[in-house]
Amino acid sequence: MILRNLTLLAAALAAAAAAAQTPPKKFAQPANMRELIASSKPTDWRALDPERTLYLDLANGRVVIELAPAFAPRHVANIQKLARAHWYDGLAIVRLQDNFVAQWGDPLNSKPEVGEKRLPAEFTRSAVGLPFTRLKDPDTFANEVGFSDGLPVARTAADGEAWATHCYGMVGVGRDKDPATAIGTELYVVIGHSPRQLDRNTAIVGRVVWGIELLSSLPRGTEDLGFYAPEQRVPIQSIRVATDVPAAERLPLEVMRTDVAAFQKLIELRRNRRDAWYKVPAGRIDVCNVPLPVREHAEHQAEKAEHKAR
Amino acid sequence: MILRNLTLLAAALAAAAAAAQTPPKKFAQPANMRELIASSKPTDWRALDPERTLYLDLANGRVVIELAPAFAPRHVANIQKLARAHWYDGLAIVRLQDNFVAQWGDPLNSKPEVGEKRLPAEFTRSAVGLPFTRLKDPDTFANEVGFSDGLPVARTAADGEAWATHCYGMVGVGRDKDPATAIGTELYVVIGHSPRQLDRNTAIVGRVVWGIELLSSLPRGTEDLGFYAPEQRVPIQSIRVATDVPAAERLPLEVMRTDVAAFQKLIELRRNRRDAWYKVPAGRIDVCNVPLPVREHAEHQAEKAEHKAR
Repeated sequence: MILRNLTLLAAALAAAAAAAQTPPKKFAQPANMRELIASSKPTDWRALDPERTLYLDLANGRVVIELAPAFAPRHVANIQKLARAHWYDGLAIVRLQDNFVAQWGDPLNSKPEVGEKRLPAEFTRSAVGLPFTRLKDPDTFANEVGFSDGLPVARTAADGEAWATHCYGMVGVGRDKDPATAIGTELYVVIGHSPRQLDRNTAIVGRVVWGIELLSSLPRGTEDLGFYAPEQRVPIQSIRVATDVPAAERLPLEVMRTDVAAFQKLIELRRNRRDAWYKVPAGRIDVCNVPLPVREHAEHQAEKAEHKAR
Repeated sequence: MILRNLTLLAAALAAAAAAAQTPPKKFAQPANMRELIASSKPTDWRALDPERTLYLDLANGRVVIELAPAFAPRHVANIQKLARAHWYDGLAIVRLQDNFVAQWGDPLNSKPEVGEKRLPAEFTRSAVGLPFTRLKDPDTFANEVGFSDGLPVARTAADGEAWATHCYGMVGVGRDKDPATAIGTELYVVIGHSPRQLDRNTAIVGRVVWGIELLSSLPRGTEDLGFYAPEQRVPIQSIRVATDVPAAERLPLEVMRTDVAAFQKLIELRRNRRDAWYKVPAGRIDVCNVPLPVREHAEHQAEKAEHKAR
């Protein structure tokens, strides 16, 4: 069977991690994401800032979320406060709706009130002053789409409104009908086709940059809207701001900058695939289908290898 | 905590099944998908044709695929032949790449050759003669998008080329670089954000209409491109054409017709959500975010209830 090892996809996000483990190579013209990452410069990357990084620890691993204070400063601050009060610890994933979201919170109403009781909506912000690397491709929902500091974003115009778009892995704040009820005690992560109808209806507070498979592969909830029955709930060990975690226990990640030439090259490589598998290049790309390369620091890799050798 | 039972999403596909179990209600103006389904007429639905229905049976349940001979007649015929030779039985899910595809095949090259050894590409077809309910919303990738007999589709023009689009749940044929190697021995299902770059590069042979959560919640593969290590593979009990399964063991499903007014109403209800949770209606919809309502026959529901009562 010649199809045994067929490679349906040219490049996977996993390639980023793999690339970090091998010596950088130079490619005159990278043919795919793996080669592009291998030939990137250190300045094409930025380390995650521990103060705006959350660790969601589950029994089987860690989900890493990069927070987005540029879009929801008060919500992000409240989430940091809740994490620092250990408010999320011992709560549970309470919902997994297929092709939609994973969601967690306090279903038993067991936790004391910490932090804000109500917050003004932070569903959009002014586009003025927001870094914006525009994607030239047309978008079904917004006038303009692009990237801002690692996030997929949309805006009405350069002097209009801007918001983060609901792509795979984006983290938003659950709420009741009243927008002020969105305070960060209930958070969701997109685990399916981008539900762009949520754009401008919730506060996006960040993006999962590592370990989303720990959420996306959870069993689907059997209750209405994919909520778990109580016995299905998946315990959360803790949610911490990375700053508060001892350095040795942190996961030192870096992500590709979205304002560098390498990222533009990546977009073009994904817009028009150049490997021989593709017969018809798409010629276009969806803002939600541009991957954000993430890898462990090269230094950390070296440390781990040394530790192993001891 | 007022957020305990927040309902992030207005209507879920699960509602379709629920609605089938309750007497139809009439709504002058359905406010959401659930009400629309509850007030739909029997003629808004069509039963799956068992001859173009595949049952993929796993240890923990059944995935139902509606085949699409209008788009890939020779591939569909070969898949039916393979199923009838019990060729897929005992094979395995071999790949689960997060936010991309679940895929199965014969990794050990254990099966005898059955059916076609090569097939001409069926990646697009003529748009002429193809039923097409057009979606008015702009699409990033194609001139025109819409629906044809339950499938999301795109076309260049009414007299141009047409193809099924890679939305969540769509089933395609894996292949090597040579398009003729796509014969149906290796199949994949989209389980993430629509990889529209695959459009016109593979043969779409159908769509999962039931049980996709059995695939989408599988553990992610740890090998390159999300392939499973051998010990991770998930056994396939059998793949059958529904016609070949005793009537009592069939799952009698019906799907909403995509050429009826009720479906147009559904699209509009999803384009501009009318429940109070939404503050800003999207005003647009993505062809890959229009749900296809699926439910068990009302008759079957009644039979099951009677059976239970006995």
